[in-house]
Amino acid sequence: MRLLEERIVKDGEVKEGGILKVGAFLNQQMDVALFEEMAKEFRRLFDGCGVNKILTIEASGIGIACMTAQAFGCPALFAKKGRTSNLSADVYTAQVESFTHGGVSEIMVSKDYLGPGDRVLIVDDFLANGAALNGLIKLVRDSGATLVGAGIAIEKAFQPGGDLIRASGVRVESLARIKSMSPEGGIEFC
Amino acid sequence: MRLLEERIVKDGEVKEGGILKVGAFLNQQMDVALFEEMAKEFRRLFDGCGVNKILTIEASGIGIACMTAQAFGCPALFAKKGRTSNLSADVYTAQVESFTHGGVSEIMVSKDYLGPGDRVLIVDDFLANGAALNGLIKLVRDSGATLVGAGIAIEKAFQPGGDLIRASGVRVESLARIKSMSPEGGIEFC
Repeated sequence: MRLLEERIVKDGEVKEGGILKVGAFLNQQMDVALFEEMAKEFRRLFDGCGVNKILTIEASGIGIACMTAQAFGCPALFAKKGRTSNLSADVYTAQVESFTHGGVSEIMVSKDYLGPGDRVLIVDDFLANGAALNGLIKLVRDSGATLVGAGIAIEKAFQPGGDLIRASGVRVESLARIKSMSPEGGIEFC
Repeated sequence: MRLLEERIVKDGEVKEGGILKVGAFLNQQMDVALFEEMAKEFRRLFDGCGVNKILTIEASGIGIACMTAQAFGCPALFAKKGRTSNLSADVYTAQVESFTHGGVSEIMVSKDYLGPGDRVLIVDDFLANGAALNGLIKLVRDSGATLVGAGIAIEKAFQPGGDLIRASGVRVESLARIKSMSPEGGIEFC
């Protein structure tokens, strides 16, 4: 998606250690006009697939998920990291290793909100090693819902997650796929 | 806001210990069509105030913040809890006590995204003792931005946060104000 690629080049910052900072427009400050365009593109890509629920993981996927839900006319749902007192005891869970925080965390979604009647599009801001996406896929499968596919804003295509998950049979559509990046050389898209 | 009050009565669950579960439509599963109506109401209430940024706190405020940002035609921004590797070192911080998690956490927002040029509307899903809202107000004040006010989905008006913050001179508009609630007696609005 040209609009997103151009924005990454304009306002993204490549840091050492494979980190791309896009907090200016994607995952801390959120340009919702851009999100609307991204949501329309997800709608175009997954049109006719009967999507009736958008699933993401807190926190940075939530904005994109809400705008995508608006485009599909369905609810959005986010998996939580760790247990809180206002979450039902009856949850689907998965283990996810965090790239940005380090360590392993448990993600979970209430059984009340995901089940066999759902046709789920997973959305997230980043796909790199695939840890978060694999966790979300497990939640969908455990619930008996149908996984339609995954819509990702930015895929680090030089990391193996996307290809491995596609090879497992899941449809993954990424709006911007980064082939390589470095603080000196900038960003090259696929 | 009648639409929200009706939805709270229909799909909310009052638990022991002053907990209102609204995960079915507000803070885990998110009814974005409802959020659109809430956002329109915030726009109506704060119209003409020059709002150019919506600020919230992760995670459950983000969806409402994005829809509100769409209604105002401005970006949304969320404060993070705890430090991560992809957040700038240069941040405004505040201490916030959590009602649902217990304990105190540090919230922060990058200095890159909040400053003297901003006219900020804070939005959040709940207002009870005011801990999160006070933390967000501190971030806005420390940044030199102008605080226009706060738009809250559900205020537990039987807890002191809202009145204390209003008494300090901040305009707080809550779409549903709960006067009392109990598992046996149900919910009474102000």
